[in-house]
Amino acid sequence: MKRVMLTIAYDGTNYCGWQIQINGITVEEVLNRCLCELTGEQIAVIGASRTDSGVHALGNVAVFDTESNIPADKFSYALNQRLPEDIRIQESREVPADFHPRYGNCVKTYRYQILNRRHPIPTLRLYTDFEFMPLDLEKMRKACTYLTGEHDFKSFCSLRTQIRTTVRTIYRLELEKEQDLITMTISGNGFLYNMVRIIAGTLIKIGLGVYPPEHMKEILDAKDRMAAGPKAPARGLTLMEIRYEALGEKI
Amino acid sequence: MKRVMLTIAYDGTNYCGWQIQINGITVEEVLNRCLCELTGEQIAVIGASRTDSGVHALGNVAVFDTESNIPADKFSYALNQRLPEDIRIQESREVPADFHPRYGNCVKTYRYQILNRRHPIPTLRLYTDFEFMPLDLEKMRKACTYLTGEHDFKSFCSLRTQIRTTVRTIYRLELEKEQDLITMTISGNGFLYNMVRIIAGTLIKIGLGVYPPEHMKEILDAKDRMAAGPKAPARGLTLMEIRYEALGEKI
Repeated sequence: MKRVMLTIAYDGTNYCGWQIQINGITVEEVLNRCLCELTGEQIAVIGASRTDSGVHALGNVAVFDTESNIPADKFSYALNQRLPEDIRIQESREVPADFHPRYGNCVKTYRYQILNRRHPIPTLRLYTDFEFMPLDLEKMRKACTYLTGEHDFKSFCSLRTQIRTTVRTIYRLELEKEQDLITMTISGNGFLYNMVRIIAGTLIKIGLGVYPPEHMKEILDAKDRMAAGPKAPARGLTLMEIRYEALGEKI
Repeated sequence: MKRVMLTIAYDGTNYCGWQIQINGITVEEVLNRCLCELTGEQIAVIGASRTDSGVHALGNVAVFDTESNIPADKFSYALNQRLPEDIRIQESREVPADFHPRYGNCVKTYRYQILNRRHPIPTLRLYTDFEFMPLDLEKMRKACTYLTGEHDFKSFCSLRTQIRTTVRTIYRLELEKEQDLITMTISGNGFLYNMVRIIAGTLIKIGLGVYPPEHMKEILDAKDRMAAGPKAPARGLTLMEIRYEALGEKI
């Protein structure tokens, strides 16, 4: 028996998110089916991040246990032969039997992309949010400074039951612009439900001049979802990477 | 009556190319239909470049004549309201009544993208060719030097009737690499049928070490399609820009 970790990339456009559900096809479900076909075992992966419908990933993580004699590092190739073109394993490797992708210290990094120009670009439409009105990047950058560090991010959490705490730490929150494409990169020790998309939606409002940058602090202090901006569309969001302290990765 | 020029971007994935045909839906057909609905006139655009099935564009060009009182520069907005999400007009403007997008001196620029890594990235799959084996960029760059300038590119032309001459001039042919993504940019005064994709396919063979870079000169001299490499897949190709001398653009 060995525990294998998969690093998984997917185009979320045609999936109802990661987690198995009855309303539509999910990445987890497709992955489980391919693993069962490949090994002949009943395998159900444990995923790190339950990305929402339409959200993309370059580096989501999942683990499973197997008696298969396929070497751990060969699962990536074997699975990619069976998976649909919009899901591709980037790496597979053996991890300690007690490694769990949702427990223990980790750093997750997400990217949110906004195309800010007069007309949309069709080849970017599935992977960016489109904004017609000019965004003031410096205002958005100023607003970002209020969010880094440890805070109660309750204002940036869609209502959902059973959360122990809404305190999280953001290690890094940066905005870069290349031509008309604004890229927000955010790293933290965990994110609340819809937190990255609500931060992106709030930054867009600030970039549009709807609120001043300083209003970000008031939103944070309000600890009230109604204080923040709208949730930005799923298509602009990509889970880039998850690093684990338990695996000796720098966090 | 005025002549309006459109700069058109599209995701070619779901189209049987630009030119109207009976086998499937094309960009030209969708554009004509939207123009007819918008103006109430019978409009058939004249396109600059008849891109193949699956090829993308950021800057294809088409013109049409209209009696409509919609200002020329507002056609972009009005059409984008009606067009499907995978076609977007980037600019519309009035041009002289005798301007024709296929006659006169112009410079066309294409981009070909190759993702060169161990595993594909799902969110890039529709816009890049994927190559698993490492490509030697320096060999590919060396081979490019034989192609710039005026040459008979008969070896890089898929067989098709009624071509007056297979002589063309390549002004620029460059390869750049950013992480795992190789981008070929090629500008010229015109390209033969499948010419950019056959050049890309031949460069890939050279990057793989199948032929040495110097073999590019022999392929050119052979004036024989059989001498060159295979045509690279359509999905990696994007028509970036067309500049016209007749419109005072730098060529």
